[in-house]
Amino acid sequence: MPNISASHLEHFIVSAFEGLGFPADDARLIGRLMTEADLQGSDGHGVIRLPAYARRIQAGGINRTPQIRVVQERAAMAVIDGDNGMGHVVVSQAVDLAISKARESGVAWVSTRFSNHAGPASLYARRALDEEMIGLYFAVGNANHLPPWGGAEMLLSTNPIAAAIPAGTEPPVVLDMATTVAAYGKVKAKAKRGEMMPEGWMIDRQGNPLIDPKRADEGFLLPIGGHKGYGLALMVGLLAGTLGGAAMGREVVDFNADFVSVTNTGQAILMIDLAAFGDPAQFKDAVDVLVRDLRQAERLPGVERIWLPGEQSHARRDQYRIHGIPLPDAVVSDLGALAASLSIAPPAIEELGSL
Amino acid sequence: MPNISASHLEHFIVSAFEGLGFPADDARLIGRLMTEADLQGSDGHGVIRLPAYARRIQAGGINRTPQIRVVQERAAMAVIDGDNGMGHVVVSQAVDLAISKARESGVAWVSTRFSNHAGPASLYARRALDEEMIGLYFAVGNANHLPPWGGAEMLLSTNPIAAAIPAGTEPPVVLDMATTVAAYGKVKAKAKRGEMMPEGWMIDRQGNPLIDPKRADEGFLLPIGGHKGYGLALMVGLLAGTLGGAAMGREVVDFNADFVSVTNTGQAILMIDLAAFGDPAQFKDAVDVLVRDLRQAERLPGVERIWLPGEQSHARRDQYRIHGIPLPDAVVSDLGALAASLSIAPPAIEELGSL
Repeated sequence: MPNISASHLEHFIVSAFEGLGFPADDARLIGRLMTEADLQGSDGHGVIRLPAYARRIQAGGINRTPQIRVVQERAAMAVIDGDNGMGHVVVSQAVDLAISKARESGVAWVSTRFSNHAGPASLYARRALDEEMIGLYFAVGNANHLPPWGGAEMLLSTNPIAAAIPAGTEPPVVLDMATTVAAYGKVKAKAKRGEMMPEGWMIDRQGNPLIDPKRADEGFLLPIGGHKGYGLALMVGLLAGTLGGAAMGREVVDFNADFVSVTNTGQAILMIDLAAFGDPAQFKDAVDVLVRDLRQAERLPGVERIWLPGEQSHARRDQYRIHGIPLPDAVVSDLGALAASLSIAPPAIEELGSL
Repeated sequence: MPNISASHLEHFIVSAFEGLGFPADDARLIGRLMTEADLQGSDGHGVIRLPAYARRIQAGGINRTPQIRVVQERAAMAVIDGDNGMGHVVVSQAVDLAISKARESGVAWVSTRFSNHAGPASLYARRALDEEMIGLYFAVGNANHLPPWGGAEMLLSTNPIAAAIPAGTEPPVVLDMATTVAAYGKVKAKAKRGEMMPEGWMIDRQGNPLIDPKRADEGFLLPIGGHKGYGLALMVGLLAGTLGGAAMGREVVDFNADFVSVTNTGQAILMIDLAAFGDPAQFKDAVDVLVRDLRQAERLPGVERIWLPGEQSHARRDQYRIHGIPLPDAVVSDLGALAASLSIAPPAIEELGSL
């Protein structure tokens, strides 16, 4: 598979956003975050999205120079109006504010409205890790792929949850999950790679399994644990969308079909300052003990290794940083076409063989 | 099935706790909360637990007159040390404090340590509803029934999540879910009723389905969505246990096997004041619209009705308040034996036929 170094990928994304008319600081921020997404293996949410972002930006569906402002505020919370800016830029401001408020009040919640798709949830929860905080992140997905349990009408999105919890010498515990069995980004990645989906990811309108990702628009995603995942998706949507005045349910704009309408995407970030609860070193020691106990637990027959949430992404990040990030041919070709349309150099791809 | 009115059930529970040496106020609080659990159909967490509570209390495993105190505090958070009191009493204080802090700071998080089993998670999240707040609740379960994904050693509990979200004229959205396919309380309730479990609730140590609830100690519960539910159970345990200095992982005391050791149970409650985010009436209108859209969504073939989380408990509460709460014969007989041992009147059961 074609391969690209993180720095070349980041350089390309920054150039693309500059070419699309973004301020240099915002282009750099977006480039760094999108590259981090690919580095950790969130391949449904990284550079694969760039052509769709560009299309929306060029259609006027995203504000290149938003006036992002705080519209509601108390000691431990705020609501940020993103003025229809790129999600990466809006959510980064929300995270900064949540961290500074949590430092004072112990915990803080910041909601966004009039934001946009911001990449993988864990990018933002992970910001807690350098601050000796726990980060939780909730978002409303940008297209409805999930019906209520028993329903055949897609009124909910895959509404993800992320949590980042610092450890001591062990890698942090980082959970990043859609409330569906598979995220829609994973369906798209399967389609790009020409692969079939496992049974259980999607069903069609009769309730039968759907495994061809190219037929994804004929069915819907399945929630984890049946009615429980439906409940979680709804809870996350109410917290990340409705609470902050962002779109939820029928109001959600399908960003795969409509490149112009303001999405009014909502996200919410909760930061929890470990120092408020006691000695952070003691907390991190306890996490280390727990992580080791889980990893070293007795295993079911045939299981080679027990993984902690985030551990595989952690390993992938280290590996991709050294060996480069694999990109499917279809993505390389889309990025080449985008580069030509923006009159910028194409991404510096190398053929390193499969990793 | 035998049947009891809510007021007779509550009266019996209060008498039992008074008979067990609890202060009258605490007995009343516990009686009210345990009855509410049965009223909403949380039958694995209501009066069915009373004989085990009594056994632990009589064995000295619970402090009847705890000195509950705040040990860490900032504007938007606190940690409460429950001094090994009954969970219902400790968590109620945590909820009161979280509500008053959220009223000031917009959101507030209160963790408990040295608490005990407190009944169904939604009891405490629901306290938000009368305050125009959203309530979230996390708890560490009181026995490990869940291995890490791929593991065969039970290091995690069913660690539940509850969320209560106010609506306007519609019933509130109330989610109350174990991070396993079934809560262990439901397994116990099946055993009491002499019923088999569906496949998918538990597996044995070879990874084969286990359906006889009387053989529950030969296997373990399955998490929702495979590795995702494992990640959620871990996240909830870190938030509800480790963060507040309570037991998690190997430290968790199996309260079904050990009636003496201090459990150091942890819970966490997050209260979010709607008024901090805008006009609560507008929020509740938006929830009403969403609830109706979901309920009225197109349905899969064969589905009669789409339910919202908490809607069935809501209906059950109304029905049980009028017609009484059904109690399995085995529970009635256990309660009768407890009454005799405490020299109090047995519960006032009526035979009303099945509801």
